[in-house]
Amino acid sequence: MRHVHHDLKVYGKIKLFVGSGTKELGQKVARKLRLKLSECDIIEFPNENLFIKLKGSVRGQDVYVIQTTSSPVHRNLMELLIMIQTLKLDSAARITAVVPYLCYGRSDKKDQPRVPITARLVTDMLEAAGADRYMTLDPHAAQVQGFFSIPGDVLQASRLLIKHINKDLKKGMKKPVVVSVDLGFAKKGRDYAEKMDMPIAFIEKRRVGNNSKAEALTLIGNVSGCDVIIVDDEVDTGGSIAQAVKVVKENGARDVYLAFVHPILSANGAERLGALPIKQIITTDSVPIPPEKMKFLKDKITIISVDDLLGGVILRAHQGRSVGEMFNE
Amino acid sequence: MRHVHHDLKVYGKIKLFVGSGTKELGQKVARKLRLKLSECDIIEFPNENLFIKLKGSVRGQDVYVIQTTSSPVHRNLMELLIMIQTLKLDSAARITAVVPYLCYGRSDKKDQPRVPITARLVTDMLEAAGADRYMTLDPHAAQVQGFFSIPGDVLQASRLLIKHINKDLKKGMKKPVVVSVDLGFAKKGRDYAEKMDMPIAFIEKRRVGNNSKAEALTLIGNVSGCDVIIVDDEVDTGGSIAQAVKVVKENGARDVYLAFVHPILSANGAERLGALPIKQIITTDSVPIPPEKMKFLKDKITIISVDDLLGGVILRAHQGRSVGEMFNE
Amino acid sequence: MRHVHHDLKVYGKIKLFVGSGTKELGQKVARKLRLKLSECDIIEFPNENLFIKLKGSVRGQDVYVIQTTSSPVHRNLMELLIMIQTLKLDSAARITAVVPYLCYGRSDKKDQPRVPITARLVTDMLEAAGADRYMTLDPHAAQVQGFFSIPGDVLQASRLLIKHINKDLKKGMKKPVVVSVDLGFAKKGRDYAEKMDMPIAFIEKRRVGNNSKAEALTLIGNVSGCDVIIVDDEVDTGGSIAQAVKVVKENGARDVYLAFVHPILSANGAERLGALPIKQIITTDSVPIPPEKMKFLKDKITIISVDDLLGGVILRAHQGRSVGEMFNE
Amino acid sequence: MRHVHHDLKVYGKIKLFVGSGTKELGQKVARKLRLKLSECDIIEFPNENLFIKLKGSVRGQDVYVIQTTSSPVHRNLMELLIMIQTLKLDSAARITAVVPYLCYGRSDKKDQPRVPITARLVTDMLEAAGADRYMTLDPHAAQVQGFFSIPGDVLQASRLLIKHINKDLKKGMKKPVVVSVDLGFAKKGRDYAEKMDMPIAFIEKRRVGNNSKAEALTLIGNVSGCDVIIVDDEVDTGGSIAQAVKVVKENGARDVYLAFVHPILSANGAERLGALPIKQIITTDSVPIPPEKMKFLKDKITIISVDDLLGGVILRAHQGRSVGEMFNE
Amino acid sequence: MRHVHHDLKVYGKIKLFVGSGTKELGQKVARKLRLKLSECDIIEFPNENLFIKLKGSVRGQDVYVIQTTSSPVHRNLMELLIMIQTLKLDSAARITAVVPYLCYGRSDKKDQPRVPITARLVTDMLEAAGADRYMTLDPHAAQVQGFFSIPGDVLQASRLLIKHINKDLKKGMKKPVVVSVDLGFAKKGRDYAEKMDMPIAFIEKRRVGNNSKAEALTLIGNVSGCDVIIVDDEVDTGGSIAQAVKVVKENGARDVYLAFVHPILSANGAERLGALPIKQIITTDSVPIPPEKMKFLKDKITIISVDDLLGGVILRAHQGRSVGEMFNE
Amino acid sequence: MRHVHHDLKVYGKIKLFVGSGTKELGQKVARKLRLKLSECDIIEFPNENLFIKLKGSVRGQDVYVIQTTSSPVHRNLMELLIMIQTLKLDSAARITAVVPYLCYGRSDKKDQPRVPITARLVTDMLEAAGADRYMTLDPHAAQVQGFFSIPGDVLQASRLLIKHINKDLKKGMKKPVVVSVDLGFAKKGRDYAEKMDMPIAFIEKRRVGNNSKAEALTLIGNVSGCDVIIVDDEVDTGGSIAQAVKVVKENGARDVYLAFVHPILSANGAERLGALPIKQIITTDSVPIPPEKMKFLKDKITIISVDDLLGGVILRAHQGRSVGEMFNE
Repeated sequence: MRHVHHDLKVYGKIKLFVGSGTKELGQKVARKLRLKLSECDIIEFPNENLFIKLKGSVRGQDVYVIQTTSSPVHRNLMELLIMIQTLKLDSAARITAVVPYLCYGRSDKKDQPRVPITARLVTDMLEAAGADRYMTLDPHAAQVQGFFSIPGDVLQASRLLIKHINKDLKKGMKKPVVVSVDLGFAKKGRDYAEKMDMPIAFIEKRRVGNNSKAEALTLIGNVSGCDVIIVDDEVDTGGSIAQAVKVVKENGARDVYLAFVHPILSANGAERLGALPIKQIITTDSVPIPPEKMKFLKDKITIISVDDLLGGVILRAHQGRSVGEMFNE
Repeated sequence: MRHVHHDLKVYGKIKLFVGSGTKELGQKVARKLRLKLSECDIIEFPNENLFIKLKGSVRGQDVYVIQTTSSPVHRNLMELLIMIQTLKLDSAARITAVVPYLCYGRSDKKDQPRVPITARLVTDMLEAAGADRYMTLDPHAAQVQGFFSIPGDVLQASRLLIKHINKDLKKGMKKPVVVSVDLGFAKKGRDYAEKMDMPIAFIEKRRVGNNSKAEALTLIGNVSGCDVIIVDDEVDTGGSIAQAVKVVKENGARDVYLAFVHPILSANGAERLGALPIKQIITTDSVPIPPEKMKFLKDKITIISVDDLLGGVILRAHQGRSVGEMFNE
Repeated sequence: MRHVHHDLKVYGKIKLFVGSGTKELGQKVARKLRLKLSECDIIEFPNENLFIKLKGSVRGQDVYVIQTTSSPVHRNLMELLIMIQTLKLDSAARITAVVPYLCYGRSDKKDQPRVPITARLVTDMLEAAGADRYMTLDPHAAQVQGFFSIPGDVLQASRLLIKHINKDLKKGMKKPVVVSVDLGFAKKGRDYAEKMDMPIAFIEKRRVGNNSKAEALTLIGNVSGCDVIIVDDEVDTGGSIAQAVKVVKENGARDVYLAFVHPILSANGAERLGALPIKQIITTDSVPIPPEKMKFLKDKITIISVDDLLGGVILRAHQGRSVGEMFNE
Repeated sequence: MRHVHHDLKVYGKIKLFVGSGTKELGQKVARKLRLKLSECDIIEFPNENLFIKLKGSVRGQDVYVIQTTSSPVHRNLMELLIMIQTLKLDSAARITAVVPYLCYGRSDKKDQPRVPITARLVTDMLEAAGADRYMTLDPHAAQVQGFFSIPGDVLQASRLLIKHINKDLKKGMKKPVVVSVDLGFAKKGRDYAEKMDMPIAFIEKRRVGNNSKAEALTLIGNVSGCDVIIVDDEVDTGGSIAQAVKVVKENGARDVYLAFVHPILSANGAERLGALPIKQIITTDSVPIPPEKMKFLKDKITIISVDDLLGGVILRAHQGRSVGEMFNE
Repeated sequence: MRHVHHDLKVYGKIKLFVGSGTKELGQKVARKLRLKLSECDIIEFPNENLFIKLKGSVRGQDVYVIQTTSSPVHRNLMELLIMIQTLKLDSAARITAVVPYLCYGRSDKKDQPRVPITARLVTDMLEAAGADRYMTLDPHAAQVQGFFSIPGDVLQASRLLIKHINKDLKKGMKKPVVVSVDLGFAKKGRDYAEKMDMPIAFIEKRRVGNNSKAEALTLIGNVSGCDVIIVDDEVDTGGSIAQAVKVVKENGARDVYLAFVHPILSANGAERLGALPIKQIITTDSVPIPPEKMKFLKDKITIISVDDLLGGVILRAHQGRSVGEMFNE
Repeated sequence: MRHVHHDLKVYGKIKLFVGSGTKELGQKVARKLRLKLSECDIIEFPNENLFIKLKGSVRGQDVYVIQTTSSPVHRNLMELLIMIQTLKLDSAARITAVVPYLCYGRSDKKDQPRVPITARLVTDMLEAAGADRYMTLDPHAAQVQGFFSIPGDVLQASRLLIKHINKDLKKGMKKPVVVSVDLGFAKKGRDYAEKMDMPIAFIEKRRVGNNSKAEALTLIGNVSGCDVIIVDDEVDTGGSIAQAVKVVKENGARDVYLAFVHPILSANGAERLGALPIKQIITTDSVPIPPEKMKFLKDKITIISVDDLLGGVILRAHQGRSVGEMFNE
């Protein structure tokens, strides 16, 4: 990655801030960009109210704030919003919210009456705070782009997972097949399968009888004698993954791999994943995994950093150059 | 359906207008509501500009405009927008755009760089014109609800198709199985299958070799010896359906049925469907099928009217009563 | 308080929802209004994301949501915002956010460069979510009314405290004097003093020397031989109050009383207040005090409920009657 | 016209796109600016939906889209709107909609109850799509500038017609007089007359008796023995022009000339104009005249290109230089 | 005019306020509506700042504020804006700004570079203050309707002038002819002429030579031996009228009448009109004429009140009935 | 102050305009910036309507308009708004409204029902006109920053007063003490006192008995034998100051000084101040004092110009440099 050429600038100089939720990734992105992170105080008062003070002016500058909205979700989200407003009030020329993991992505439609579309609320809040642009990785539904009134870059960290598997893992696999756990993820699962040149199978969940809690899982497609790569966008408590592993094993799968972008791993998700007969877990650092969760996973997890991806896109956005070119599009 | 009780009104009296694209359906909805359609002149000048004049005042009233945005798409869309603005300028209390088929639904995300999200543009235009609420049927992606800043009712005419199949067709079928043609439709296909208590199979399309035009189709799941119900949200030129019929037949399917909500049938779509070995086509009148297309289909098509569905929801919206109740939700 | 006369309604029927932060107060307001609270499920998923489902329709109705934004602050705020959006998407006729304690009230201006005005961010978020009106009690600065673009009712629960003191406590006091702890509260302190017909004194805090942490407190005015009523809008950790009690005692005060509207009592605030030589604490239930804090205070605290105040204003707002009349204004 | 000096740029580099409605004019403007047109694919699917893909990035650039909204009016308008949104979503720094002929200009007021103001709807749509600025030529009413919330340049191509007549035609005319066909155009007709130093006469249309269709035309002013130049902003079917020619001839006019900016020429307008006893028609290329219409006019039409005008203004807008200077204002 | 039937109400009860600029007209409208004016204090502090306090609540009511924006223009405009905001903050259900004369109407376009469109600024200010609807009489250009984003009623008090002339004056006139003083008023002048069944003539002003101040006036059309009715929308200093009277007299006119809607009469306008050989002046009370101006005009002025017109439209707007019906449209 | 380096520019070149209300100060700021003021015609027509024409283009430039909104308040405010709109319509890149004294600052909250918050109306109007940023000096309440949706710089000219007193006056004073006249100004009074290292005292006003007009003034704190510096943000008619001087004198004050930022001096304010036993008045030129008022004050007034402050901030805002640095923040 080349150094930032300030003389090519469109909107002042590049300024990079990092929120509490993404300290480590932020540092890595800054190193990729050969930039020093811009500093600010983030204080939490005893009444839980947050307070931010930028340590230097951003007037007329091109500012990027990296903050993932994972646990503590609402605090991190609010911190991001306050940061954006602070930057706006300090007359930044352009503010880009870089949110590797955007919370509430699964609340993206009313599939029953009288429920919210919280993903839209979150995009509205980012705009109300003053964001001019946004960046995010692999949202649950790509349509969230249409929730924003501001332009942005929706990036696919899944490409990094695919690249890793194709380069390092695929040659050691036998009859590999992709398995998509969620039918809402079927099309994206197909994209994985196509780019890795593997067939695909699906797991269908269906409620059983009158008991709305009981679910029957069916494998559609064939995994017998195959190495299986289960793919998803995020893993939360790992419940669906545990069911899926069981189903593919029952259907004769050999080794099982798991690839997903966002390691939310809430509740006992990490412990559960650690206990499953999964050969390897491939994910990213879009969400930090704290040590107390990492200990369950460290033997079989590969974390691909998104630092290069985010850094490259930030640089091109700043310089007014094509982002699509990075992906030969 | 009960008569409109004007004394229960929340926003003035109910007024129902119908656009050029939906004359017949509009009349049917009016009859269901035991209302006389409100009249207006819709004139097209030699320079193609449209002009609308309402024949009566809508001040302070609760107005519904039914207009499907099928062919001629842009003219019908513009007519709808002009109508909405005319109603707003005449000081309607509330304007609901009832758009059985909402155009540009497939342009709902940027899945490659430098392309539009036209579905969002369309929702922005409806709001810019002055719509206070909207109603639509089975949009391509349910997430389009999140594109709107105004509230609305996204209704599922697919329920009517399912009800019809369950009631009239299912008992005559042998080992019926649902087939979803598009992996983006996998989850909704599953809903069809679940509500009809049938298994599901999928057709996967994948590009072949370096030739980006050639596609290979794979059936995932089993249809051998089964009656197949191909399901989708809309059928346009019928190309994918023709491929799907071929694949399921090659995989040993018995009779093939086709169920979809929106009969767009552009280009030679009607003729192509008519020529396929499909036993029965079940669709709705969300989009009018002109006689010259109907002639290819009349032997095997069943059109379920959405008049009762739209009428019921309009009435409840007007009276401030629950719409979810209509569906036991 | 009279019963709600539905036939006087302006915006549909009154519907009252209560958020997690204000369950008890909400029930009391409902009882005052002789209404049954509207029900909804509020679920927190393992990934901390909240989900709301209304149990009944609010189409065309006049909806009030009571939610105080005290601890857990960000979760309660987000719950309120999601609730508002859910109501909007269900086509409520009017949504009033009733927020007895509005968080971030002290972040109401930039008194140094490069800091936020979070109070404005919060009002923007309420509007972005879809609130049509708001109600709140004794905000830190009355100017927050100007942060809203929507109309609302800013109510003074301090009147309840004053009324209580005038009626039950004043006659037992000797030479009572009001003391305002914060010079930003001087004018409101004067209002207390005027309405209780007592003189006023002030405590001034000033940094000492070059050490920015050290503060000197000065009493301006006279409290010698007087019973003192310290007044403030909210008490957080109680640090300033502890200093104030010390100062007035050093200046010869007799008994000390403490009156404030919002019992935030974060960190060890309750314990600290409990340990101070204060004869009586008078506050409200705008913020719930959990039992583990209450135990430190129960001997000397009087909690005046704001239920009647909120209920009365909700009723008048619903009926389109003057709220000012309640206060002879 | 001088070359674009990129080092003077205010908003990135200049990028020029052309819509389907203005291909030829767009090429000419690009040549004047010594720029290569930016490329994009504009695809129309069988269901009439349009799809656009830019062939290169416009991030941070200063983009101009030239698209006239003449026939097919609604398709061309929608193409323009989609193009603007695509540019916005690709993070263009500034987007200027250059619309030589802006449709629906005559629907600029409610001159009877219950009709639209479609010109305002069109400006709202341009803004909703994301245009930052606009340029247009000789709108029907200059007040349309006040319909826009965004700044823009309303240019007078009529100056080009006047310049041409003064330079090439006037000396050969006998007692030339300007005739305005529409009293709504009287003031602009006067501007023509003043700048060509000729007297002016008017044609008044008035309904006759109870028959609202019958109209009587009156010439106000004198044309006897004069060469007449009929002036207007646009000519559509040519009906009014045919009447006007008849009236001036009956009133003793000698040769008749016709000057107008926008050659809409819908229905049989071109054929009708071709058949009238008009010596010469002077117009512009703000709207392309297709060959099948041109054949009726080619003997007597002079088309003045607006390429230099648009190119000059685009260049000055890009460089942040005065446009008024071009016209000594 | 019938009494207000409150039981037909759509938006609460009707409330009528009157600003300082229109006290007398406001009283007359209230009498027509058989309503008592709603009271408010309007105070001007020594620093010129205005302060308003409503004497009663308008919560949930349908409020109309009548305020003409004539001299003192900016004070009256500001008073109107403050009144609207006060009503909004008091939670009025609907606020209609009734502005008989809307200031800055002549600044409705940029007819030279680098000038404002102040009429649009004024409409933006009315909307920013919180007006939901507007009413006005005979704006300078009808297109101002398109400047508003809110709906409204643009009424023609000119109909009252025409009605008066047709009924009381026409029969006494000899060969009456309408003369329009301003070519921008030509079309509206024609409407006068058509509705009074008279011919029309125009006065054209043109700059003379290089001296931009000198103007030559030309009469286009014939007035010799005719009684002349000069028509315009407003009369300011009367300079143009004085010139027009001179021209028509020089061209052989007999008696001269003057009809216009808005008697601005600034500077010595009233005195000048009084001194002209005009037989009768017909105008309205859209703008109050103070006694010190009235004294110059009282012998020959007829003032037609717009009270009935405004009252009727307010009533119909309140009741949700057609306004067009009042005019058989 | 250093010269403007155009090559550091972020938003085009700096352009400085001055409104009628601030001619002299504007000239001084321009001199400090070594810039020539940009010229424009500001014309007032006989009907009071204002008209503005910029004498040069501001396309793509960074424009600052200095206009104080003191008497004539509404005319000056309207002039500022029209100027901003004119600049926007001429496509300025960025428009900063520099309003040394912002009118209606005291109408910043509803402290009784049914009154306006005119300060918010004024900020809304500035934004509606098209301002991108604002600058102002010592607003009545700092919270007005939260009324704006646009960023801005709220500067403290009070620092200049303090600096002057500390440098030139303090050493000659005996036991100096700061006195705040208004309890709403208590906190800012404390800031004065702290920065001048003096004690503070307060004057409390309280209504007496049932007569709401009679007020009793109490001095809280001690001034006996002290030189007193009365501080406030603005002085209007001087009534409160006269009372304050009387009270401090009665309480044994020696010399009295008066320091305040905005010399409104309406009605006979200047004469009244002139007649009071005040040794010296220190104020700024945020509001011009006309000669007929100056004559009463010239013996004892010191006017500190804000030219350097405004010029410095404009320059830093233009160059994208920190403003806080100017004040070591």
